[in-house]
Amino acid sequence: MNSFGVVFRVSIFGESHGPAIGAVIDGCPPGIALKADDFLPDLRRRQSGSRGTTKRHEPDMPEIISGVFQDFTTGAPITLITRNSDKISSDYDEFKKVPRPGHADYVSSVKYSGYSDMRGSGHFSGRITWGLVAAGVIAKKIAAGSEISAKLISAGGSENIEEALDKAIASNDTIGGIIECRVQNPPAGLGEPFFYSFESTLSHLIFSIPAIKGIEFGAGFAAAGMRGSVHNDPFVDINGKTATNNAGGINGGITNGNEIIFRTVVKPTSSTGADQTTFDFEEGKMTTLKVKGRHDTCIALRIPVIVESVTAIALADLMLIDRGIYGLRD
Amino acid sequence: MNSFGVVFRVSIFGESHGPAIGAVIDGCPPGIALKADDFLPDLRRRQSGSRGTTKRHEPDMPEIISGVFQDFTTGAPITLITRNSDKISSDYDEFKKVPRPGHADYVSSVKYSGYSDMRGSGHFSGRITWGLVAAGVIAKKIAAGSEISAKLISAGGSENIEEALDKAIASNDTIGGIIECRVQNPPAGLGEPFFYSFESTLSHLIFSIPAIKGIEFGAGFAAAGMRGSVHNDPFVDINGKTATNNAGGINGGITNGNEIIFRTVVKPTSSTGADQTTFDFEEGKMTTLKVKGRHDTCIALRIPVIVESVTAIALADLMLIDRGIYGLRD
Amino acid sequence: MNSFGVVFRVSIFGESHGPAIGAVIDGCPPGIALKADDFLPDLRRRQSGSRGTTKRHEPDMPEIISGVFQDFTTGAPITLITRNSDKISSDYDEFKKVPRPGHADYVSSVKYSGYSDMRGSGHFSGRITWGLVAAGVIAKKIAAGSEISAKLISAGGSENIEEALDKAIASNDTIGGIIECRVQNPPAGLGEPFFYSFESTLSHLIFSIPAIKGIEFGAGFAAAGMRGSVHNDPFVDINGKTATNNAGGINGGITNGNEIIFRTVVKPTSSTGADQTTFDFEEGKMTTLKVKGRHDTCIALRIPVIVESVTAIALADLMLIDRGIYGLRD
Amino acid sequence: MNSFGVVFRVSIFGESHGPAIGAVIDGCPPGIALKADDFLPDLRRRQSGSRGTTKRHEPDMPEIISGVFQDFTTGAPITLITRNSDKISSDYDEFKKVPRPGHADYVSSVKYSGYSDMRGSGHFSGRITWGLVAAGVIAKKIAAGSEISAKLISAGGSENIEEALDKAIASNDTIGGIIECRVQNPPAGLGEPFFYSFESTLSHLIFSIPAIKGIEFGAGFAAAGMRGSVHNDPFVDINGKTATNNAGGINGGITNGNEIIFRTVVKPTSSTGADQTTFDFEEGKMTTLKVKGRHDTCIALRIPVIVESVTAIALADLMLIDRGIYGLRD
Repeated sequence: MNSFGVVFRVSIFGESHGPAIGAVIDGCPPGIALKADDFLPDLRRRQSGSRGTTKRHEPDMPEIISGVFQDFTTGAPITLITRNSDKISSDYDEFKKVPRPGHADYVSSVKYSGYSDMRGSGHFSGRITWGLVAAGVIAKKIAAGSEISAKLISAGGSENIEEALDKAIASNDTIGGIIECRVQNPPAGLGEPFFYSFESTLSHLIFSIPAIKGIEFGAGFAAAGMRGSVHNDPFVDINGKTATNNAGGINGGITNGNEIIFRTVVKPTSSTGADQTTFDFEEGKMTTLKVKGRHDTCIALRIPVIVESVTAIALADLMLIDRGIYGLRD
Repeated sequence: MNSFGVVFRVSIFGESHGPAIGAVIDGCPPGIALKADDFLPDLRRRQSGSRGTTKRHEPDMPEIISGVFQDFTTGAPITLITRNSDKISSDYDEFKKVPRPGHADYVSSVKYSGYSDMRGSGHFSGRITWGLVAAGVIAKKIAAGSEISAKLISAGGSENIEEALDKAIASNDTIGGIIECRVQNPPAGLGEPFFYSFESTLSHLIFSIPAIKGIEFGAGFAAAGMRGSVHNDPFVDINGKTATNNAGGINGGITNGNEIIFRTVVKPTSSTGADQTTFDFEEGKMTTLKVKGRHDTCIALRIPVIVESVTAIALADLMLIDRGIYGLRD
Repeated sequence: MNSFGVVFRVSIFGESHGPAIGAVIDGCPPGIALKADDFLPDLRRRQSGSRGTTKRHEPDMPEIISGVFQDFTTGAPITLITRNSDKISSDYDEFKKVPRPGHADYVSSVKYSGYSDMRGSGHFSGRITWGLVAAGVIAKKIAAGSEISAKLISAGGSENIEEALDKAIASNDTIGGIIECRVQNPPAGLGEPFFYSFESTLSHLIFSIPAIKGIEFGAGFAAAGMRGSVHNDPFVDINGKTATNNAGGINGGITNGNEIIFRTVVKPTSSTGADQTTFDFEEGKMTTLKVKGRHDTCIALRIPVIVESVTAIALADLMLIDRGIYGLRD
Repeated sequence: MNSFGVVFRVSIFGESHGPAIGAVIDGCPPGIALKADDFLPDLRRRQSGSRGTTKRHEPDMPEIISGVFQDFTTGAPITLITRNSDKISSDYDEFKKVPRPGHADYVSSVKYSGYSDMRGSGHFSGRITWGLVAAGVIAKKIAAGSEISAKLISAGGSENIEEALDKAIASNDTIGGIIECRVQNPPAGLGEPFFYSFESTLSHLIFSIPAIKGIEFGAGFAAAGMRGSVHNDPFVDINGKTATNNAGGINGGITNGNEIIFRTVVKPTSSTGADQTTFDFEEGKMTTLKVKGRHDTCIALRIPVIVESVTAIALADLMLIDRGIYGLRD
């Protein structure tokens, strides 16, 4: 079930400590200029290295395996991989016995009957989002008329992100954050009623990003406390521009052409350096776990580019579905 | 794009003022006891009539068209319909000219080039959720080992729902609300990493419900302000029970067997009785719109059963996928 | 699994002796003129009544439940049903004990653990193809630039169909036949390499028609005895016209703009009037079965319109996929 | 559209002269023993090198990129690639101007607006079937209770294959052939009525193999000349064994537990060494084409293993769907 999309379809694969990770992108129109360098800016944004992120460093250079010829997409499926190199697998042996709280260690052993590759969290690693970002680079080219921009607007409950990082690092703990994403100049009419509503499609993809625990569009949860007369966004011109944007650019599951706005919450990194009291499944009793290894103080710092990527994937798929059913719009 | 699911697949169809609305449920195991009466309790919960809901009243009795024989499912696709009877279409003529703020009037005319049936909001009507509830009744039987329960926990920003309704009715306006849903005794191991994560699947379905603008799992948006050492849910026994439940029963996109908890926000009903200043697309200037017709003061009152229904649909599909790939678990 | 298609999606449902049968068509563009009468010519061609076909006679009038407003498609899913009226269910009781050779009686009891509705073959009845023909009427409108025409070219091994029917009726037995279908003026470029090749898509749909046991494109099985220099169709003009058409209009799984030609074989109706020695699963010994009831001497007589219908469905879906990915071609 | 399957899903990618070709297999159960060597026997059968096959020789060793850990499948998507090494791209330059009759040169330039990679036929190359065979090796392990065996039963219209090859080589021409595939001990109950019938699923996959132009099950096209009383396969024991097998082991689209038998026709290799008169799209006039390069006299020699592979893929997917919906059968 590692693929998503109706016409523009993305599959991702790989394990944190396996030979390579990657993505297959199917349904991409031919004739789009694309070369390996195009991936680097977004892939670098996803990378660790800055303050508050893990010391693990991967070059992450993409290899284009298929679907591109003479720097243009061909219409055939595009396959992108990158090799894993900076692996320290011994860190992870203990987690078979004492699953880390908040991690997928426990559920993966239940689901896969002990066969899952738990090195570096295996297929559950945030590293697998490399494929989402790579696919997003292509999707952004399809949705080029729109500008997609996500940023971390708070971390650790504070809008002062630097300060929040300082405190978390000082206490050897981790923090989460809230990311806001805006799409300017989106096409109107994207999304299908009910099961492929814009919100359905996008949230499906957003929750494919590890550590995301919530999403809200426009006024979001605050809408519960608003009157209809206030929440409703009145139209003000013939192009459907609205005076307010509590709907986040979406009515009835379909984009109305106004800016798309949504926020998403990233939980604190599970791999905290703080001691944790949890269950030892081998010994059958409680124990104290100290997670070693290299981890992010605030993984949310690395997620805005992934949010942009899946937003672009949603836009691209919905645009191609829309064009298929309704023809070109101008 | 009006279907969802990989193995247990639901399609919904119909317009508010068309001949009938309904659903097709495919991939349902044979041998499940099912008769028309089984649908009534949940369908009644979805119905209007109580204070704060529209005066439109439909009998909503389901007709089982296919897939059931001698009160058992046969394994063939199940089709359920109900006739629309209480229709007053003249209410809606004005909205072609002056699209109601917050409604799908504008986007549907853009998307469908003027061909959409706008009577009673047509295919965008909340009435189409009848099919979700009907499908949910069947899904609940598949997921019978779990108890799914949703309720409105606040309305109009207040936990005192009656009072909030009083005020909204007094001001001839509408209010939204927050619904919390809990699944007790869920199977562990449901959900596939990344694109069919439990959260992805469920949120996809939740955002298919009109008026929903946000969802959060477990601690949700509050997680952004928590430390990892606090947010992580320590395991306390061999069955994977956790001491806290900030993850809402889901790690790495997969259920861990603890209670599933999520909240979702319903915006205030768009059809407020208050005057609204908005654009007249025919005259090309601003105008004052007064929405007549029969509407809900707080549509959120009717949505808990729909939230339960789509939760059951998600559980059923993920259970059948899981059983297909991994075999029976016991 | 009762739906097919990527963008233009068809679901069919119903049992032979249930309340009604029907189809849901999703992904249909808005603005296509459509009224109930449009379905009648093709639905009548599917009907029985002529020599060699069953005496069961259903009016088969379609009711349009959704997706059409003021005689145009709206873009919402289109649901079509027709009531079953002329049912004589007592004919079928015996087949639970002695499954009819060549029928689905045995496999349906294995697959559905005894829960399947076996009256009139239930969901396995050829009657369910009503939905294919109904969907085909809409698909033909999408693929209106092409002319799709199928006919029975032989029956009972004879090109003299009337004579073959005479002999079969005289011996109280049944016969099969071969149907040839041609699509004139097809769009070039339809089909995706490998898994959605034109042949893959079409054969998938063709084998959804009960009683079909083979399909061949262009020269088909005869190609095995041809040299490459003979089988290859040389191009003769700038529009890609070919001098011969051994490929049946398809190269590399993609239409080349020449006439599409394929043939499909319909086995003899399983419900022969002749005595059959077969197994009694209740008594545990061989027995003689005499199938009563009303049946077709040559079901192949009624299948050309179904072949046309699924061909139109394949064309419509591939056209909308192609337009989605590659944009409008002119 | 380069993926197929509902639960067990296969995607293939690559171009003949690109960096690598491969496959992603999703929905594979964990705990299946799998190592690179397991792929070699079937991959070698697909290879060229024997008499009548091309001189191009690729080592074709698979690299397992993901989804396997310590020689067992993990439940995560399995990615397999192999590098292309023996490439002579200059052979193909002429075909942009003079598309080879019978090849995808023309349709790919139409469909992809000139952007397709035509070196070695690019994504249309038979070489891409490597991924089908690799996926088939895994599928065969899932369907291990059944024995799948395909062989070439005639070539060039002759059952004496060696003689047919001699003649074709002597005339510098190419020939096609007929492959028969049998599945012994198949599970009963596989396939879903109508759109996922066994024949629909299998034929969809079979026509994904380049050069296939027809398929027939059991008696196949000969059924058109048989009486129902002869074609029907009478049951002879409590396990559903039939006296004859004209249905090829499939009734109503569902396997009945008897041997599955089908035949498929492979057209003669398009790249014949004989001179061909065809159109020059640049000069706008007829010309004589002489295809150089290294090609197969009888590509059908290499296809039996691919037929087996896609048969295994169909079995695996239908088994996992069936187990998901109906539970374990014993």
